[in-house]
Amino acid sequence: MIEECFEGPEKKLELVVDESHGSLRKKGDGYWSAVVKAANAEILSTLRSDSCDAYLLSESSLFVFDDHLTMITCGRTTLVDAAAMLLSEISRDQVRLLVYERKNELFPRSQPSSFYDDARRLNDLLPGRALRFGEQDDHHIHLFHSSATYQAQSGDTTLEILMHGIPEEVASIFVGRSGSRDSIAEECGLTDLLPGFALDEFAFSPEGYSMNALRGGTYYTVHVTPEQVGSYVSFETNLDAGPRLSEFVAGVAQVFRPRALDVLSFSPTAQENAPVSVPGYMDRADVQTDFLGYDVRFSSFSRPPTGKTGPVELSLSGVVDTKA
Amino acid sequence: MIEECFEGPEKKLELVVDESHGSLRKKGDGYWSAVVKAANAEILSTLRSDSCDAYLLSESSLFVFDDHLTMITCGRTTLVDAAAMLLSEISRDQVRLLVYERKNELFPRSQPSSFYDDARRLNDLLPGRALRFGEQDDHHIHLFHSSATYQAQSGDTTLEILMHGIPEEVASIFVGRSGSRDSIAEECGLTDLLPGFALDEFAFSPEGYSMNALRGGTYYTVHVTPEQVGSYVSFETNLDAGPRLSEFVAGVAQVFRPRALDVLSFSPTAQENAPVSVPGYMDRADVQTDFLGYDVRFSSFSRPPTGKTGPVELSLSGVVDTKA
Repeated sequence: MIEECFEGPEKKLELVVDESHGSLRKKGDGYWSAVVKAANAEILSTLRSDSCDAYLLSESSLFVFDDHLTMITCGRTTLVDAAAMLLSEISRDQVRLLVYERKNELFPRSQPSSFYDDARRLNDLLPGRALRFGEQDDHHIHLFHSSATYQAQSGDTTLEILMHGIPEEVASIFVGRSGSRDSIAEECGLTDLLPGFALDEFAFSPEGYSMNALRGGTYYTVHVTPEQVGSYVSFETNLDAGPRLSEFVAGVAQVFRPRALDVLSFSPTAQENAPVSVPGYMDRADVQTDFLGYDVRFSSFSRPPTGKTGPVELSLSGVVDTKA
Repeated sequence: MIEECFEGPEKKLELVVDESHGSLRKKGDGYWSAVVKAANAEILSTLRSDSCDAYLLSESSLFVFDDHLTMITCGRTTLVDAAAMLLSEISRDQVRLLVYERKNELFPRSQPSSFYDDARRLNDLLPGRALRFGEQDDHHIHLFHSSATYQAQSGDTTLEILMHGIPEEVASIFVGRSGSRDSIAEECGLTDLLPGFALDEFAFSPEGYSMNALRGGTYYTVHVTPEQVGSYVSFETNLDAGPRLSEFVAGVAQVFRPRALDVLSFSPTAQENAPVSVPGYMDRADVQTDFLGYDVRFSSFSRPPTGKTGPVELSLSGVVDTKA
């Protein structure tokens, strides 16, 4: 079986450990390199602050704090193997929370496992439950979370903005930039939106872009798959946009101008996620639930069609061609 | 790997043969039974008119005319194997047109092959090209068509209405009806919309419904997968709705009240497909092209979200549960 494009849509792992476990950061770069390798990725570079080690990966990112971590991987990586490695070395009592997500993929047949495979494996290691936000035939996120008692802490927010189909003018910023010394984050407008962060940027050859940004314990991370078919950008941050969530999402959408985007936000239930609307986009889904002290909300948006388009002509030699 | 639901979205084959081949109908029921078996389905019953033999299958339908056929199969059937069997017995010169389609699937990992696998195999037997109508991350239809010279004949129209997510009130009509002597087509309102057809209806156990309808050389066919997660209805006809296409699509949508629907229509280029809009639904895509004398148009629609919903809770023992 041959699939055609790079899989931008990512898998994500969040893990919170108990104080009794000791600092995750103290495990050191060698350990995290082995965890990343378990997922079939590698560490490209590291950015550190007082409270966080941010690893830029060959396929996305890993943020390690003393008591928690966030790992995001794309392509055909096996993030569940990294999760299993972590769980083999941390006693079940010391895991306060595990969340594992998979965004709906463009080429699911090329993935080494399905979400169900992964969730069943995690469930055997650490009992939990599995949810789907969004319809099976539409944009959706599958999520597994551990069932153990946990209560989200004040200020523990996460925002994911997952963008499909960026226009050629935007995509071109991320093509052929390997070795460039310019800040692509500055060029595309991200640093205006989020000033004051230390940046770790990487432009892939022949195309693609990853970046981690740190300001103390606050991070954001961006991964761009600019391929003409299946273009995709993910943005994630633990910055709390609070009641200005919509405005913030619109700001990120203005940078990348995607055809469609999904927003997944986590907030402690006490502060709840503000509803999101994005000017110029139609609302396609709004799904909300609570678990373990988090208010979790998924929204999906797309631009209205702008008149008739042509079909995409596909190459039968395994490479996707241009518009017919 | 375990996947969770029945795959309603179908594969479809259309084949037109040259006069020199002789009548396809004359090949007889035994031959068509073998073709259907190649796709891993079986013939349940047969309805005949002067110009068409309509076979109701364990997974969808086959319509055989003297010079052409339409075969539609769902689930994990291998329609491409049936196509290969047909092509092994009809000389390439006698094939005037082959069109092979696959609707985007709910559970693509459970399929025995991908569209690309199928299209490459067909392309080796009969050179053609492959197109995608709709975005890869959204509802779409993959289509392969042969490249040989062909010109669609006057009156040769096809309309496919592919519906996702039917409400429980509608779904319940198609559950537990195995052995029922009532006309479900009459009960759900299809016969009001399309009067004067001879009907061949089949209610599956424990749920599901298929029907073929014939009026001379005009057919329509309906297949209902009423499962709570992944519910799906397909409707296809060669009846020409002409300029009243939107009205006709809206009528079918009113019977099944889906959350989202895709419409694929073929008309000879001289008469072109009217644009489709469906009251109460947002336009999500409008894709049009011409090939071999056909005007081909794909449109996609969904209802606006009606406020917040909860996520779907998934069973990790392999069965999908109810809403969380």
